[in-house]
Amino acid sequence: MTTVISKAPGSSAAPAELAADLVSQSIVIQNVQPQIDNGRWPVKREVGDDLEITAEIFRDGHVVLSAVILWRRADEATWRQSPMTQINPGLDLWAGSIRLTANTTYVYTIEAWTDHYETWSGELDKKVADGQTVTLELIEGRALIEAAATRADGDDGDLLTALLASFDRADDLRRHRLLQAEDVKAAMGRWPDRSQAVRYDRELRVFVDRIEARYAAWYEMFHRSQGTVPGKGATFADCEERLPEIRAMGFDVIYLVPIHPIGRLHRKGPNNSLTAGPNDPGSPYAIGSADGGHKAVNPELGTLADFRRFVRACHAQGMEVALDFAIQCAPDHPWIKEHPEWFIFRPDGTIKYAENPPKKYQDIVNVNFYGPHQEALWQELLSTFLFWIEQGVKIFRVDNPHTKPVPFWEWLIREVHKVDPEVIFLAEAFTRPRVMQMLAKVGFTQSYTYFTWRNFKGEIIDYLTELTTSPVKDYMRPNFFPSTPDINPPFLQTGGRPAHMIRFALAATLSSVYGMYNSYELCEATPVPGKEEFLNSEKYDYKVWDWDRPGNIKDFVTRINAIRHANPALHELDNLRFYPADDDNILFYGKMTKDRSNMVFVVVNLDPFDPHVAELEFPLEAMGLKQGDTFQVEELLTGRKHLWHAAKQGVKLEPAVNPVEIYRIGSWEKVDFRSPCF
Amino acid sequence: MTTVISKAPGSSAAPAELAADLVSQSIVIQNVQPQIDNGRWPVKREVGDDLEITAEIFRDGHVVLSAVILWRRADEATWRQSPMTQINPGLDLWAGSIRLTANTTYVYTIEAWTDHYETWSGELDKKVADGQTVTLELIEGRALIEAAATRADGDDGDLLTALLASFDRADDLRRHRLLQAEDVKAAMGRWPDRSQAVRYDRELRVFVDRIEARYAAWYEMFHRSQGTVPGKGATFADCEERLPEIRAMGFDVIYLVPIHPIGRLHRKGPNNSLTAGPNDPGSPYAIGSADGGHKAVNPELGTLADFRRFVRACHAQGMEVALDFAIQCAPDHPWIKEHPEWFIFRPDGTIKYAENPPKKYQDIVNVNFYGPHQEALWQELLSTFLFWIEQGVKIFRVDNPHTKPVPFWEWLIREVHKVDPEVIFLAEAFTRPRVMQMLAKVGFTQSYTYFTWRNFKGEIIDYLTELTTSPVKDYMRPNFFPSTPDINPPFLQTGGRPAHMIRFALAATLSSVYGMYNSYELCEATPVPGKEEFLNSEKYDYKVWDWDRPGNIKDFVTRINAIRHANPALHELDNLRFYPADDDNILFYGKMTKDRSNMVFVVVNLDPFDPHVAELEFPLEAMGLKQGDTFQVEELLTGRKHLWHAAKQGVKLEPAVNPVEIYRIGSWEKVDFRSPCF
Repeated sequence: MTTVISKAPGSSAAPAELAADLVSQSIVIQNVQPQIDNGRWPVKREVGDDLEITAEIFRDGHVVLSAVILWRRADEATWRQSPMTQINPGLDLWAGSIRLTANTTYVYTIEAWTDHYETWSGELDKKVADGQTVTLELIEGRALIEAAATRADGDDGDLLTALLASFDRADDLRRHRLLQAEDVKAAMGRWPDRSQAVRYDRELRVFVDRIEARYAAWYEMFHRSQGTVPGKGATFADCEERLPEIRAMGFDVIYLVPIHPIGRLHRKGPNNSLTAGPNDPGSPYAIGSADGGHKAVNPELGTLADFRRFVRACHAQGMEVALDFAIQCAPDHPWIKEHPEWFIFRPDGTIKYAENPPKKYQDIVNVNFYGPHQEALWQELLSTFLFWIEQGVKIFRVDNPHTKPVPFWEWLIREVHKVDPEVIFLAEAFTRPRVMQMLAKVGFTQSYTYFTWRNFKGEIIDYLTELTTSPVKDYMRPNFFPSTPDINPPFLQTGGRPAHMIRFALAATLSSVYGMYNSYELCEATPVPGKEEFLNSEKYDYKVWDWDRPGNIKDFVTRINAIRHANPALHELDNLRFYPADDDNILFYGKMTKDRSNMVFVVVNLDPFDPHVAELEFPLEAMGLKQGDTFQVEELLTGRKHLWHAAKQGVKLEPAVNPVEIYRIGSWEKVDFRSPCF
Repeated sequence: MTTVISKAPGSSAAPAELAADLVSQSIVIQNVQPQIDNGRWPVKREVGDDLEITAEIFRDGHVVLSAVILWRRADEATWRQSPMTQINPGLDLWAGSIRLTANTTYVYTIEAWTDHYETWSGELDKKVADGQTVTLELIEGRALIEAAATRADGDDGDLLTALLASFDRADDLRRHRLLQAEDVKAAMGRWPDRSQAVRYDRELRVFVDRIEARYAAWYEMFHRSQGTVPGKGATFADCEERLPEIRAMGFDVIYLVPIHPIGRLHRKGPNNSLTAGPNDPGSPYAIGSADGGHKAVNPELGTLADFRRFVRACHAQGMEVALDFAIQCAPDHPWIKEHPEWFIFRPDGTIKYAENPPKKYQDIVNVNFYGPHQEALWQELLSTFLFWIEQGVKIFRVDNPHTKPVPFWEWLIREVHKVDPEVIFLAEAFTRPRVMQMLAKVGFTQSYTYFTWRNFKGEIIDYLTELTTSPVKDYMRPNFFPSTPDINPPFLQTGGRPAHMIRFALAATLSSVYGMYNSYELCEATPVPGKEEFLNSEKYDYKVWDWDRPGNIKDFVTRINAIRHANPALHELDNLRFYPADDDNILFYGKMTKDRSNMVFVVVNLDPFDPHVAELEFPLEAMGLKQGDTFQVEELLTGRKHLWHAAKQGVKLEPAVNPVEIYRIGSWEKVDFRSPCF
């Protein structure tokens, strides 16, 4: 039957996409979610998640359908199946889920078929209820059983075969009971006729990352500033010294700016000046010198063995290392001599340095992704990632990925994941939204975002609502940085210590993964006047910090990280919801686990200068409470406890005292004295 | 270069969908709109429309892109192109349009490329403005001109070639002027380097219907009730008699319920009773008898020649004929003997009649679309459509299409359109929304909708907003029927003459295509008590109407249709917008042509019982007016004129007097006396 229609005269010239096969398209399966760009890109989830899948499934006429999710690991050949149920008959909406247990790619699709037995059974019930004679219907039902008996194995086969003999000896009343007996229904459900099943026309993918892709606190360490001797760069050994303190603050990842040899040619001096003195260290983003390139370590920091020791020290503390991956080269990078074909030379024979006219970056040259010799260049970059993975690094923060071709990243991330699916890629995609989203689609695990510039209530709610509830949530995970070595936002420049507390708390509680750049805990925000840059940035200079200097917020950071660790609701991203607070300076939001065993609410005064008062409105229904129920509240920064009886609660937040409050909700156990109590 | 990457070791096992070719994917073209289900179904438009196409287009880095729409008629081989412009750089959004001039399928896609000359030129400008030396940049620019000169023909080729010689003799200042001269810029724009152009990964389709698909007034004619002799059915000749009167009311389409022989076996009697008397005519939806089947004419109505004469008479009046196409058969349809394999027989050898348990339709049997012999059945149905097209019918109202397989309709409509793209199909898809939408996707020109049951302000606004502004608008055209032979809604049963005026005005002004079932103009709404059905329905009975009976609304119908004809804004569907009216009984909406040369506003009292007062708010900005501008208003049902000076205007609507007002806006010409006037 499959080919009958396609042979019909007149349809011989049919475009391939047109229905040629009645059976394969008689059931419509459409709008399968989640799905990105028609399945072109995988959805992202994390180990342990249940992937909830919905679809619209229907066919002509009034019949009962059955549907299942077919799924497998991409590296397996055999499909497994999970049941789907119709959750909204009016909208023909079905749902089911699969449990994702491994850090790998899974493939899923949907299969549906007409359940002839249930269709028959439902119609029979209506006719019997209407008092109609159903002798013929029973004989028609027998035919369905007979067909199923030939499909069924074991006990079910025996049951159905025996049923046929009983049926033939019985009268209508008994036949009716026989055909719809519970065990018969169950056996028929196990042996449906799927010969005419319809399969969704594509296979969708979900890439399942390890949980750290979604939940982690990053500490951005500028390695050479971790020492104690002014005018001298720190070593990996110095960095190691700081690890216990950083771990004590509650961080999970040490992210190092580039650790490679720094170019000498056109090296930048302090405050990005064009000429460096002989002792100026240069920007670590100008990678490569006579000391080596992307697979080498800056001798000032130590040796490769020292780096490996640092990685082990991090692991010993329960932390891991993230490396910065910046593809650009200093003009004295070894690649330029070894592979001049990877670079662009100008009519006068000089190498073309990076520029964004009229700005010039003479200390940096970019590889040419659009020249010949792509294969060798791509392979060298891949081998560089694999080299650092061999040193124990499983997280890479990629510098400016939006200035490299999208297909390159898709290929690179896929190839790395073939070797090690645990590897996490953070895109420094500070660019336009569609480009930022595209890099997430092609495989970046996380992305920098516009959070750094979203300071006020409306813009925070709008942006976070987009990140956590729009289709973007299925493929782009934000990693919130309140500041970076390149970005010293005006809010922090002017708002002082309260501003640092506010932005830290927002980053750490709005997003489940966030990063803090070292010296943020010291509230360092002295700008190059009129610019969004740090004065005397450690990008171009040696620096020594007093990590305990007065006014620091290390205790606050430590407390917030401890609260994150202790509250599973804060390990999730897309459970964020905003709630009413009747003052434009006060932001009120919450996160709950699905089972409501952990419910956390956060209220933040977004104004670092003045106290504000607001009436908050707790979402009682979402919290599983009724109007008038009592709920117990613990404010987690102070440990203060409350008993509240109403959805509306007043709060006053003073920037210098309590710019932020975090409430964990506990239920107030009611003892019902009508129950016997022993 | 194309294959270099795909040969890279490690990517040999690449899934086919992954990027193997840097060039072909280096520019991202995504989210091309309009587009339905990833291009699986064609968008719908009408002859004369401009199809506006948008897309997100971007690539890595800071370069200037160019993009065009590539388009062609599906029956042509050669692509044409239309320019696209970047309309929102921040969102990488581009737009362009194509003019659709023929009643056929068009194919469209997008091509984009990097404009190296404009990129170079923009960077040069910035460097020059910054006072930088650009000697090398000019030489690099020369190379771009040289390459273009080899591509360019004719004058452009000569111009660019001559430029190279001048360049070589000139100093930097003059070189700069030469390379960016206006004529050089223009020539470079005409000869871009498209060797690395990227094509969108699919071709999208738009099916362009004739304008009647979007704009027409239908009159549903129950043929046998058009006569004057009680107890006797009318003939086509009687129907012809009525045409001048119907045309005078302003209708464009005469839609006839099925005209075929009516089965005698199990014929239904008056009010759907199970047994018919010897003179009862039976339901025309029980098709087929010894007199013939779907290609025959009920002898009571006349002969096939009489039908053709009726069709010609309609054409002579400027109207056309729509036929009802109901696939079901009476038990004595000739197909049952000729093709028993198309039907289902029960274990006792009887044919399976239609049922929706516990309801039984003994006068109807359905063909079995899921049996064998599909090809012959599909071909017979196709040939039936083609037969009636040969008789001059170009519109079909399809009965219950949702109980037949979706792939059948896709095939059938495509095959019919191959023969005659003018044919219009109206789906009587009174079913769940996803099924209704699916039938529109697969090709139905128009669809019945839930309008019949949307009576109140919120539900009308919600439903019409969905129909005219959601993605549905690109493929589903509503055809609004206030009632049908099967549906006598409670609103009309109880609301009398005002209700009929209200619902008629809504149908005819909310939607650009609508239908009125005969006797609606007489305000006939006597129900079978407690049911949504007409008492003594002409579906089962002979009936004679007094077409001028007291209380009729023929003048109102005539006036509304004349207003529709005279106002192009009412010929469109998706220009509908709702505006504020501060009473829940008063609905206020408007339609404008794109150039605002025609602006029509409609205000309706949705309560047929009581007068209501409201303050309307006209959308001055959308009307091209400023606060305080004067606008002239003509109320089109009464001809009354107004001069209004403010957005807010009061209105009182009395059900018996003016349940509806329709305003056409004219501009009030300001004469500026500061201009010279001669």
